[in-house]
Amino acid sequence: MDPQSDFFSGDAFARTCGIEHIESGNGYARVKMTINESHLNSHGTVHGGAIFTLADAAFALASNSHGIPAAAINAHISYMKAAVSGPLYAEADEFSLNPRLATYTVKVTGKNGEKIAIFQGMVYRKTPKP
Amino acid sequence: MDPQSDFFSGDAFARTCGIEHIESGNGYARVKMTINESHLNSHGTVHGGAIFTLADAAFALASNSHGIPAAAINAHISYMKAAVSGPLYAEADEFSLNPRLATYTVKVTGKNGEKIAIFQGMVYRKTPKP
Amino acid sequence: MDPQSDFFSGDAFARTCGIEHIESGNGYARVKMTINESHLNSHGTVHGGAIFTLADAAFALASNSHGIPAAAINAHISYMKAAVSGPLYAEADEFSLNPRLATYTVKVTGKNGEKIAIFQGMVYRKTPKP
Amino acid sequence: MDPQSDFFSGDAFARTCGIEHIESGNGYARVKMTINESHLNSHGTVHGGAIFTLADAAFALASNSHGIPAAAINAHISYMKAAVSGPLYAEADEFSLNPRLATYTVKVTGKNGEKIAIFQGMVYRKTPKP
Repeated sequence: MDPQSDFFSGDAFARTCGIEHIESGNGYARVKMTINESHLNSHGTVHGGAIFTLADAAFALASNSHGIPAAAINAHISYMKAAVSGPLYAEADEFSLNPRLATYTVKVTGKNGEKIAIFQGMVYRKTPKP
Repeated sequence: MDPQSDFFSGDAFARTCGIEHIESGNGYARVKMTINESHLNSHGTVHGGAIFTLADAAFALASNSHGIPAAAINAHISYMKAAVSGPLYAEADEFSLNPRLATYTVKVTGKNGEKIAIFQGMVYRKTPKP
Repeated sequence: MDPQSDFFSGDAFARTCGIEHIESGNGYARVKMTINESHLNSHGTVHGGAIFTLADAAFALASNSHGIPAAAINAHISYMKAAVSGPLYAEADEFSLNPRLATYTVKVTGKNGEKIAIFQGMVYRKTPKP
Repeated sequence: MDPQSDFFSGDAFARTCGIEHIESGNGYARVKMTINESHLNSHGTVHGGAIFTLADAAFALASNSHGIPAAAINAHISYMKAAVSGPLYAEADEFSLNPRLATYTVKVTGKNGEKIAIFQGMVYRKTPKP
């Protein structure tokens, strides 16, 4: 099993939410969430927390891809379109990486590529001193 | 049943996450999440998506408390302490309200009141013209 | 004079900060800030407010490029490297556009292309109904 | 001269923007910005970058109040009302403080106390190990 799949298989909440690992690599990840009634909010659309969690799963995979534990310290999400059905996809790309802090942009899209949300996150990494 | 409880009972994803409505009123809400293994991430602490969803549930209740549907358009969260057990609480307060846009601050705390995260969110409301 | 240069020439605070318009088009803009001692903070590096203002100038140009007034409603910035000299550049790209809300990502870089900050902003636009 | 005034007097960009230090203490600060034409944007209202810089000045004072240099790593601002005249005030309060990371909430208000913006910022601090 590759290290990223192994890392992802330990993410219990991502599984609770029905999130699957599609692919990942250095500073990169792509995940998928199948939508059912358990993901909806009181307005009948996919819950903002579910969309955030999908983005966060991609962010966690990408930021932990360098072999050094990375803890999320903050994240920002903008929603541009309500999603009523799935699947939804999230793709994380690394924007910057230094020994302590790194930043990622994650795009969430719908089944036809429509833009659902954009997410930006920062992690703190305890890189050992050389 | 009071309108807020009714609104909350329609939030399927909040129930999926084990979130309960404690109290809410005009521009205000307080919710609770019991933590079990399904909420953990790959580091063994409560998943950032679960913490965000708890804050988001309080934000949704507070922002929809005025009888006009409010859709989240963006949110920002800062995490200050990993949570390893629960319950966790989130409390939302309205900072500003105008016919189209309103903003909320949500504090997430642990069972002993320790600060876990702070969240800021904005909603768009389609208030009918008078 | 093209409409964007005209728009920019009305931005008094951007001029106060020494910001110049390089180019812009539909949903896009690129600006530059020459750095001198007036831009520094108490640590002797370029002030976060100056870096934000540079990003904001690109955001304003890009979001107002469609001929409909766009008002910033929120913005998020992450800083990855202190800047000690200039010039600095900011480049804004539109991520999403709908009649009421639009989102932009702005990258701030140094003279050698080094990443200084990443900014995400949302505007509210009063698009007339057809 | 008290240490905070001394710190503030080194902030060249805050002076460029006409920002004054009113008061500050442990994890707290209050600043003021007199508004003139140099602060306006292309819409004739106070520039988002000027409002951000005012909030940032309060954030810098509050986060550097403990005697350990604090560098801003990210900030989020929501604007709720355009400001057309001044003065404007910003008040920063510490929400959390640990050896490496600390968070602050800053409220920006107008001359009659009207809410203009809310800001949330995080700093990284190199606290020496004991």
